[in-house]
Amino acid sequence: MVTTPHAPEVFHIYDTTLRDGAQQEGLRLSVADKLRMAGCLDRLGVTFIEGGWPGANPSDTEFFQRARTELDLQHATLAAFGSTRRAGATAATDPQVQALVDSEAPVVCLVAKSHDRHVTDALKTTLEENLAMVTDTVSHLVEQGRRVFVDCEHFFDGYRANPAYALEVVRAAAEAGAEVVVLCDTNGGMLPEDMGEIVSAVGEVGVGLGIHCHNDSGCAVANSLAAVSAGVMHVQGTVNGYGERTGNADLVSVLANMQLKYGWDLVPDSCLADATAVCHEIAEITNVQLPGRQPYVGSSAFAHKAGLHASAIKVDANMYQHIEPELVGNSMRMLISDMAGRANIQLKGAELGFDLSDREVAARITTTVKQRESVGYSYEASDASFELLLRDELGVLELPFHILDWDVAVRAGRDGKDSTSASVTVSVAGQEASADASGNGPVNALDHALRTVLEPMLPRVGDFELTDYRVRILEQGHGTDATVRVLIDTTDGPHAWTTVGVGENVIEASWEALADAYAFGLIRHA
Amino acid sequence: MVTTPHAPEVFHIYDTTLRDGAQQEGLRLSVADKLRMAGCLDRLGVTFIEGGWPGANPSDTEFFQRARTELDLQHATLAAFGSTRRAGATAATDPQVQALVDSEAPVVCLVAKSHDRHVTDALKTTLEENLAMVTDTVSHLVEQGRRVFVDCEHFFDGYRANPAYALEVVRAAAEAGAEVVVLCDTNGGMLPEDMGEIVSAVGEVGVGLGIHCHNDSGCAVANSLAAVSAGVMHVQGTVNGYGERTGNADLVSVLANMQLKYGWDLVPDSCLADATAVCHEIAEITNVQLPGRQPYVGSSAFAHKAGLHASAIKVDANMYQHIEPELVGNSMRMLISDMAGRANIQLKGAELGFDLSDREVAARITTTVKQRESVGYSYEASDASFELLLRDELGVLELPFHILDWDVAVRAGRDGKDSTSASVTVSVAGQEASADASGNGPVNALDHALRTVLEPMLPRVGDFELTDYRVRILEQGHGTDATVRVLIDTTDGPHAWTTVGVGENVIEASWEALADAYAFGLIRHA
Repeated sequence: MVTTPHAPEVFHIYDTTLRDGAQQEGLRLSVADKLRMAGCLDRLGVTFIEGGWPGANPSDTEFFQRARTELDLQHATLAAFGSTRRAGATAATDPQVQALVDSEAPVVCLVAKSHDRHVTDALKTTLEENLAMVTDTVSHLVEQGRRVFVDCEHFFDGYRANPAYALEVVRAAAEAGAEVVVLCDTNGGMLPEDMGEIVSAVGEVGVGLGIHCHNDSGCAVANSLAAVSAGVMHVQGTVNGYGERTGNADLVSVLANMQLKYGWDLVPDSCLADATAVCHEIAEITNVQLPGRQPYVGSSAFAHKAGLHASAIKVDANMYQHIEPELVGNSMRMLISDMAGRANIQLKGAELGFDLSDREVAARITTTVKQRESVGYSYEASDASFELLLRDELGVLELPFHILDWDVAVRAGRDGKDSTSASVTVSVAGQEASADASGNGPVNALDHALRTVLEPMLPRVGDFELTDYRVRILEQGHGTDATVRVLIDTTDGPHAWTTVGVGENVIEASWEALADAYAFGLIRHA
Repeated sequence: MVTTPHAPEVFHIYDTTLRDGAQQEGLRLSVADKLRMAGCLDRLGVTFIEGGWPGANPSDTEFFQRARTELDLQHATLAAFGSTRRAGATAATDPQVQALVDSEAPVVCLVAKSHDRHVTDALKTTLEENLAMVTDTVSHLVEQGRRVFVDCEHFFDGYRANPAYALEVVRAAAEAGAEVVVLCDTNGGMLPEDMGEIVSAVGEVGVGLGIHCHNDSGCAVANSLAAVSAGVMHVQGTVNGYGERTGNADLVSVLANMQLKYGWDLVPDSCLADATAVCHEIAEITNVQLPGRQPYVGSSAFAHKAGLHASAIKVDANMYQHIEPELVGNSMRMLISDMAGRANIQLKGAELGFDLSDREVAARITTTVKQRESVGYSYEASDASFELLLRDELGVLELPFHILDWDVAVRAGRDGKDSTSASVTVSVAGQEASADASGNGPVNALDHALRTVLEPMLPRVGDFELTDYRVRILEQGHGTDATVRVLIDTTDGPHAWTTVGVGENVIEASWEALADAYAFGLIRHA
């Protein structure tokens, strides 16, 4: 009943995060970023890592230079991206082609036009010259000892407009010695049904085919799979689906679907089990937050909220998840919410290392959680505050410091000068101390003041860093006296935690989340 | 060459954002939120809006009560979600079933178990009793004059485990009078290839079939389309793909693919052209940032990075986009002063009663708007601030008051007492005045102080009321020094307006929006 395509003998997982992924709006990568990311991608077990376009910009040239000494790849082979030679020249004398050779990358992936109108209207050359450019550039690079792949840009739109010409480009590349010809859905508008049909038709050329999808119709993963079913032996994509517009095919979803659902043995199981860590590490490098909902590796991908499910999950977790999350290095999470019953709380407690098997204790904590959630707290998003509550209820909460008083003021004078300042007084082990600080906002000033007063006595706080601060108005329609919920994310490097504060006063709610963030870090990660 | 399935005579677009979408981690909706969202969904032209589970929680019951008087739907019919009756009881005496009747929703969507193991191990009843529960509950609701749809939970996993039983559940629902039987990929692990095969097999039952997908394999949109190709006449999904774990099928992508790629006439073109606005407005209500990369409606979905494509796009934009973005209300973004931008501003100016036909003036204002939007202002959401900017640029802004200075302080003492106080000094027609006020939060205190100082001189402000205050963090990953955007809604009874403030300091950004709210109200509605 499960349709499983037959696995080809050779199959390429081709990552283009560093080149096509870097086209994403707002994404800027240094050479050092790219080198770190290449190390991550190698851990994932991909076959090829496309490092960039040497010659097109200095930093990509530098990447390939430094890769020779700084990268020690275990699984992947480095590929350089470039273009077919200029019209009316020769490949041997084209500096852009020479830069590809100079990169010393063993694999070159050349982009070629395959849509007739793009040749005549965008490239402004003839259809014949475009074929000659493909033949000449591929032959030249093969002569230089390179393995050559050819990306046929706008292939599917081109095939619809002029199938004969699109096939001629594929044939020219194959005859000149290209190992793989990659069919690119450059505008990303394909649907899976058409994808399979066209790929099958191109199969007659008899060269190894690849697929490169964008997500404009929301089908990049499925389009890639449809092409695989139709016979391609090479899939291109990016980690976290980075890419221009709606992004490229999410390579991890495509890989996981093939390995876990088709049962193909594409990368070592240990590599796939590193996928969640790799995706999150790459998101840290790009500084683009990984959506919780991202398939397979998102923080919510195996998170369960409904109380309805929780009791049944205790019976058999696999009834409520499509794969075992550990296969991709993720884990099931039970979300604590006002929909939660006792079963959720017990599971969550066990996850954090607390024994809540006593039904009475579990029931009491469940009541507290529900009551606090009804006034606006949200523990599903803030494990750290939940753990503090749990410790408090179990009588094992020992606060590392006590707040005695604090204040914050924001002023804007008629001289045009603004100022924000805060002061905090705490006691640590019976010793009282105060500090003042300024900041670019009230919470920032309070954070500085708290850090300043704690650090001499509790030096661990020097490692704490606030990484995100979110404010949510809970009840609409009440103007500035609405209840707000503040979430603060904190990290000390190896660990990250989230705390919550609630109140009508945004500063007080922020302060609650802030003080909890420091308390939790000191208790749990001191 | 394009595979276009034949359109069924009747086709349902069934939105479950308010029910299944609300299961998303971190998403909490008030009844007021849901009512506003229902209005947005109706603008999209969906056939059904599932409002929630009346009886399961008080707020969903309240939603259906208030919907009767507060919702005026033009396109959609309201549906209530519920469950088949309890084992060993009767539908007529089951309070949960009665709550569905009491909701007065004309359509009821019942969830039923269709996977044998879920019946025996999770529901803990017999396979026979489960069938009786389906038959009894559907018949009872049909007798009560309701249109009944049945969601077969875990259908695809169930069909694989025990196809005969899964089909029996479908048959029981059909024979009892269900109008549509919806096949649910509850765990979201299906791939499109298998989807079509199983849906076709179920087709033999001869009842109208629907599809409900989750995105765990990254294929929810494609799975929905595969089911449509295999003959379903009802698609369920959520706006922005909200939902538990990896989310539900993104209903707008599914709809746009069917309407624009299949060429099916499912909703009025004007509704589809409202899709981008609707998705962004719903994201404002949920306060979950809409990913720039979201297909069709994301801010990056038709954004082109300068480079290889830039000059060719000028030749023919359609060579570089899969659809015309205007069809879904989105727009191509590339250069600072593109035609679409200026045209929009001219249109908006005319709407507000300003003549911007002078190309130079329009271009200058477009540049200002784009520059301010690039640092975080959002004029789409704040007409009042846009009008103030317009008046300023046109040299016709006469401020009714000038702010000279202001300050606000929040204090928490060791006596457990908190206080928040603010003071504001303004000049009105050359006369200086100050006022102090306290409040339950810093913005509330500033609002009170500003109102107090203005009212004796400008009594109209006595009618102003702040009805909503929203804070959005614009840049993730920067902790408390992130840039925030504040939106404030104000009303004077007959009119309502929204202003915006932006900055790293939440208090200063709030103050900007607050001062603009008073200025606009006095200028426009004095």
